Amino acid sequence: MSEIVTVNSLIKLYREKGIDGLKNLDEVEIYGWVRTNRPSGQLAFLELHDGTHFLSLQLVYKKDNSQFEMMSHLKMGASIKATGHLVSSPSAKQPFELQVKSVELIGDVAEDYPLQKKRASFEFLREQAYLRPRANTFQAVYRVRSVLAFAIHSFFQERGFVYVHTPIITGNDAEGAGQLFQVATEGEHPFTDFFGKEAHLTVSGQLHGEAFALAFKDIYTFGPTFRAEHSNTPRHASEFWMIEPEMAFCDLKGDMNIIESCLKYAIQKVMDSCPDEIAFFNQFIAPGLKEKLEHVLHSAFAHMTYTAAIEHLEKAVKDGHKFDNSHIYWGMDLQSEHERYLCENIAKGPLFLTDYPKEIKAFYMKENPDGKTVAAVDLLVPGEGELVGGSQREDDPEKLKIKMGNLKDMDWYYNLRRYGGCPHAGFGIGFDRLLMYVTGMQNIRDVQLFPRTSNALKY
Amino acid sequence: MSEIVTVNSLIKLYREKGIDGLKNLDEVEIYGWVRTNRPSGQLAFLELHDGTHFLSLQLVYKKDNSQFEMMSHLKMGASIKATGHLVSSPSAKQPFELQVKSVELIGDVAEDYPLQKKRASFEFLREQAYLRPRANTFQAVYRVRSVLAFAIHSFFQERGFVYVHTPIITGNDAEGAGQLFQVATEGEHPFTDFFGKEAHLTVSGQLHGEAFALAFKDIYTFGPTFRAEHSNTPRHASEFWMIEPEMAFCDLKGDMNIIESCLKYAIQKVMDSCPDEIAFFNQFIAPGLKEKLEHVLHSAFAHMTYTAAIEHLEKAVKDGHKFDNSHIYWGMDLQSEHERYLCENIAKGPLFLTDYPKEIKAFYMKENPDGKTVAAVDLLVPGEGELVGGSQREDDPEKLKIKMGNLKDMDWYYNLRRYGGCPHAGFGIGFDRLLMYVTGMQNIRDVQLFPRTSNALKY
Repeated sequence: MSEIVTVNSLIKLYREKGIDGLKNLDEVEIYGWVRTNRPSGQLAFLELHDGTHFLSLQLVYKKDNSQFEMMSHLKMGASIKATGHLVSSPSAKQPFELQVKSVELIGDVAEDYPLQKKRASFEFLREQAYLRPRANTFQAVYRVRSVLAFAIHSFFQERGFVYVHTPIITGNDAEGAGQLFQVATEGEHPFTDFFGKEAHLTVSGQLHGEAFALAFKDIYTFGPTFRAEHSNTPRHASEFWMIEPEMAFCDLKGDMNIIESCLKYAIQKVMDSCPDEIAFFNQFIAPGLKEKLEHVLHSAFAHMTYTAAIEHLEKAVKDGHKFDNSHIYWGMDLQSEHERYLCENIAKGPLFLTDYPKEIKAFYMKENPDGKTVAAVDLLVPGEGELVGGSQREDDPEKLKIKMGNLKDMDWYYNLRRYGGCPHAGFGIGFDRLLMYVTGMQNIRDVQLFPRTSNALKY
Repeated sequence: MSEIVTVNSLIKLYREKGIDGLKNLDEVEIYGWVRTNRPSGQLAFLELHDGTHFLSLQLVYKKDNSQFEMMSHLKMGASIKATGHLVSSPSAKQPFELQVKSVELIGDVAEDYPLQKKRASFEFLREQAYLRPRANTFQAVYRVRSVLAFAIHSFFQERGFVYVHTPIITGNDAEGAGQLFQVATEGEHPFTDFFGKEAHLTVSGQLHGEAFALAFKDIYTFGPTFRAEHSNTPRHASEFWMIEPEMAFCDLKGDMNIIESCLKYAIQKVMDSCPDEIAFFNQFIAPGLKEKLEHVLHSAFAHMTYTAAIEHLEKAVKDGHKFDNSHIYWGMDLQSEHERYLCENIAKGPLFLTDYPKEIKAFYMKENPDGKTVAAVDLLVPGEGELVGGSQREDDPEKLKIKMGNLKDMDWYYNLRRYGGCPHAGFGIGFDRLLMYVTGMQNIRDVQLFPRTSNALKY
């Protein structure tokens, strides 16, 4: 009986016990897909990828093997079972390889297989979204996606935060955070028949999350959110995952502490768990990535008020710095170029920008004593701009009521302030953008599985 | 300076170091909400709940405290800050209590606060969905929900499964698993303008998940799914979370092994992490719950084919057992009463029922060599019926094509069999139903945060 192994189990064993650990194994059996197959002379080399690790396993088979002819015709993408013994490899690429005893073809590949050996462009692969996870870059992206998601869960769970599933279908457009998708039923009046009122896809779980923070102290959401916007940019999608923690008895300072710890924890976990993937991104996708991430891990994030930021930007313009929009004034909404200037040129690293004018921020943010600004924070990072947005929430029922205006069906949100309210704060991280930041990938369509944007719903 | 503590940190410290660990603390500061407040004579007792633990902390304050009058008027639900020293408690209810030095009222409670001391019915609390997480039962339900969700993630991550976010908005109704919600945009033609085709809310991530299993070997989804059905039962909701693992190079036997390990792992984690919550459910919600869960942990799940099940049911009818539907025949779809009879009376525990007639199962399930049945499995559990459903998938492209019929835009799914296909299998767990099973709660509306059912979209 041979032992079933995976590339991941072999690499683990090798990293623990060295080559002897592998040589001590009896005959092994491994399942996976052919990446490359290069018969040449007396020896042939087949690269087997089984999806359990970023790296592949080299299979070596000899001309005198009775299956040599069959093996040499195995095509890229075919699924196979191989048995043999592990030996140390003379190649520089990997320390061990499988000396093949026998191979079985499990699933062949039709001639029209779209992934051929030559390097395919990201644009081409987007059209083959169901096959691209087999490509090297996407093996790295989606594994980091999984590790990053679990790191986020681990961070909050270790700190006692309660994970809440806020609803996807919602009856209120609370935040005004963008265009909404409506939810309808087939064959019925599309808008109100099923639920008895208009229903939308959520743009944020925050407001529902606040109700749970006022019962559990610390909670977080992690789920999909939606925008029906026709934004055709590399950073916008109609469907994306958000993480929205909310903490009772917490102010803006506490909020920022958690943002900083959370990001550092998540980045550290990815670097620890995915060294091969990060090395790949660093080499082929985003040179300097590793240094950037290490810098984030080891620096204290800077802090600056919006008011100070405006002064910095005004000075920059005076000193001759060219922005696309150089009309800088207190009260303006900062664009990405301004945000990047502040963190790249002034802070030279991640920067918490706080205390924005109340007019340009959401109704639920807590008014500062100056009457002009709110206790809001955006985390700006070099190369990206805004990565996280948060705020302390308005807990004064009267002030909130004025700012809410006539948001229908939102009495319950107001009531949270009348029934044992307290200072509370929270933030939102766009998970897909965080993944772009951690991998250096430049298009949100290339970090999501099956991206949804306007006119794109192939799968 | 007093040290900020939580109920959870105190109970942890107590369970590690005993009462001395608490007595050694200097003055502490704690934030939370008033559960009860009973001034009587020279002493008064205030139960403080801070959401970090199922249990509360008893605050004791004395008549000679200059704040006694103010404290004695603190209302249920008010948020407060209390400082004082921890001492051992003469009460049998808890081993320690806080001797109050001072209290500060942070957020008062309006007179119309709907949660008053008397026991409120689940029906009443459903109408107050934004406040019910403050009630004892729902503190327990939602904390177990969070722990159970993280246990699921931990199980799969520890085994190297890649977590995938399959899309919520989808262009194909592949499974025919039920009525669909349509996704439209406001102010445009509701059905096709945004995406250029009809868009729906997903009923399952399985088909997209299969594409990723054929690249990563083992993957799992964990996300929301939807049904636009007017089913007004305690087990149906329009929005619920599903876990859908998918494994390449895996058959039905491997599938069942993972189902069994996964459930046992998750139940064990909940019992280890939430002993107070499980004790509460066992006492007040579902007597016998703890024994039921322990039985699941320590028994091997039974196996039976559908064909054998029909024989058992026919015998039961012959022996006088009354079903609502006693017309038993090979080919019938089993109802919940039949499923429960099989696991409760025959298997006396969790039962894998396998190899169903192909006519009553989905098109993607693998046909068995007999040509009549498919490699499908349902896990039946006492008291519930079906808890998990899975199958090996049809990997023969020609057989699949016949069964798919004219599912439009599904070439990609068929192609997965032509491009290095292999035996693969997976299953689906309705997360909310699993939570009902683990807590003993009887209505899906009472384990979800803001349940969505027809005509219910208050929040």
